[in-house]
Amino acid sequence: MAVYTEVNDAELIDFLASYSIGKLLSCKGIAEGVENSNYFLHTESGSFILTLYEKRVEERELPFFLSLMEHLAESGLSCPQPVKNKAGEALGRLAGRPAAIVTFLDGYAIHHPESQHCAALGEALARLHLAGAGFKMKRKNTLSINAWRPLFSPYAERASEISDELRDFVEKELNLLEQNWPENLPLGVIHADLFPDNVFFLGNRISGFIDFYFACCDALAYDLAICLNAWCFDSNQRFQPASCVAMINAYQSVRKLTENEIQAFPWLVRGAAMRFLLTRFVDWLNVPKGALVRPKDPREYLNKLRFHQTMTSFKDYGLSS
Amino acid sequence: MAVYTEVNDAELIDFLASYSIGKLLSCKGIAEGVENSNYFLHTESGSFILTLYEKRVEERELPFFLSLMEHLAESGLSCPQPVKNKAGEALGRLAGRPAAIVTFLDGYAIHHPESQHCAALGEALARLHLAGAGFKMKRKNTLSINAWRPLFSPYAERASEISDELRDFVEKELNLLEQNWPENLPLGVIHADLFPDNVFFLGNRISGFIDFYFACCDALAYDLAICLNAWCFDSNQRFQPASCVAMINAYQSVRKLTENEIQAFPWLVRGAAMRFLLTRFVDWLNVPKGALVRPKDPREYLNKLRFHQTMTSFKDYGLSS
Repeated sequence: MAVYTEVNDAELIDFLASYSIGKLLSCKGIAEGVENSNYFLHTESGSFILTLYEKRVEERELPFFLSLMEHLAESGLSCPQPVKNKAGEALGRLAGRPAAIVTFLDGYAIHHPESQHCAALGEALARLHLAGAGFKMKRKNTLSINAWRPLFSPYAERASEISDELRDFVEKELNLLEQNWPENLPLGVIHADLFPDNVFFLGNRISGFIDFYFACCDALAYDLAICLNAWCFDSNQRFQPASCVAMINAYQSVRKLTENEIQAFPWLVRGAAMRFLLTRFVDWLNVPKGALVRPKDPREYLNKLRFHQTMTSFKDYGLSS
Repeated sequence: MAVYTEVNDAELIDFLASYSIGKLLSCKGIAEGVENSNYFLHTESGSFILTLYEKRVEERELPFFLSLMEHLAESGLSCPQPVKNKAGEALGRLAGRPAAIVTFLDGYAIHHPESQHCAALGEALARLHLAGAGFKMKRKNTLSINAWRPLFSPYAERASEISDELRDFVEKELNLLEQNWPENLPLGVIHADLFPDNVFFLGNRISGFIDFYFACCDALAYDLAICLNAWCFDSNQRFQPASCVAMINAYQSVRKLTENEIQAFPWLVRGAAMRFLLTRFVDWLNVPKGALVRPKDPREYLNKLRFHQTMTSFKDYGLSS
């Protein structure tokens, strides 16, 4: 849960005076998102989310994320829409932090997604990839393969705090990933963090995507590999082939994977598992004392990665290429 | 911030089916309240607060609190209104916890109240006391003078963890309070926890009171004494006489204090400070490891109580009796 920065009524009222969304009626810190402070905001003109960006988000990158949300909404994809202030800016400053107001999106996260949800996700993800095509701004994926070794090395000695064999396991797998990492795949804007928390549903239909603060330019199929990890295992980390097949077939009904992407898929899936294993591992070791956030268990992604090591082709995941 | 119990989408949808407020549109855990888990709930028929009652609230006492809110709303006082389910019950069960839905109240807490806010509070508090008169249910104040010694004794030896002289200070003050605690004061329903967090404003006007989970039957003037402690000091615990005078005069414009209440007032104010000093002290020593709540500093109330010890009459607070 995330409210790192407290906003008081007086500074909020001042801040809202720079927007044209009417007077403050209510503002409540919400337990959503891990990186930033989020508030539910009710004003005379409706409901919004107010986000204060915390240290882990680089201020100079915010225009990319906010412009992307705007671009996607204009392309018909449902996602929060940045609200501009009277000066035409989507980004302001509140309580000493960069801050933005976005439209409130109805919908709720599905905690135990089933194959129909995975199908809806696959289709919507492909539409996101198509909608991103016209977006001009660029942002590198700062958490892709080149980042993994520098992320792990400073903490390698402490890997045993998680699991005895973790250090060896990661180092061997990093070697393999570095040798086999696919190149020349179709690139585009990816969400890069499309976990169930970031996908809202109304019934079995997706009402929108949120939390674009890891979005970047990378291989489109890598986004699908992240989703496979996040959506196609049950809570005991057992792989769910029906969910996987439903998700990828639905994706392909909108955007067909290329032969290269299909060949590369098992490595992308292992890489995606590695990325979340490593960031969770580092977060686990760095929970600040007194933090109001419970870190996620890195072992979940260790188990998933072990599973992926047993798979060698697209077909192994139940898919026909 | 408080979301102790996580609610998943499936159980929430089931729960809402027992109400007539339409389908779930959104539900977000909110960082408000310390005792219970609170969610902002949006359904087809509007906005609500969903509360899951945690261990510190006794289930058998919930009907008192919920009926009181209903009674006060019927008497024209603005406060959340319990929503009854299809069986006519205000209290249900969700995620293994007693749970209730109440109407959403616009407004926001004033973090640094000034005398005009204290005046608004005084008047609204007196109206609450008058509105409570017709309420038939009874609940003892379980945190009044008889509770203080049993609350402190088990932790007396650890008082030095807060301050060297705390143990002596509390024991001497408890002796004095027990000798001088006023009796035969006008009784009624009191809120008993009317801190700025629990009073919503829209501009300078109060839009409503929330969080009635300490409400009970006790001396009406004791409620005012709690408010004096909570509203009439600045953030450095310096007493604000103008706020105090504004609050009490506004209270008296609606409900005149009796001569007995005026005589008793300095002891009520010291007792109120003692009550919060002790509960904060015990909470401070009992923060569970990994708790997502920061306990409030008991020293704040130690300072306030020291200040009150220098006051001997209603007049000393700047008031004319």
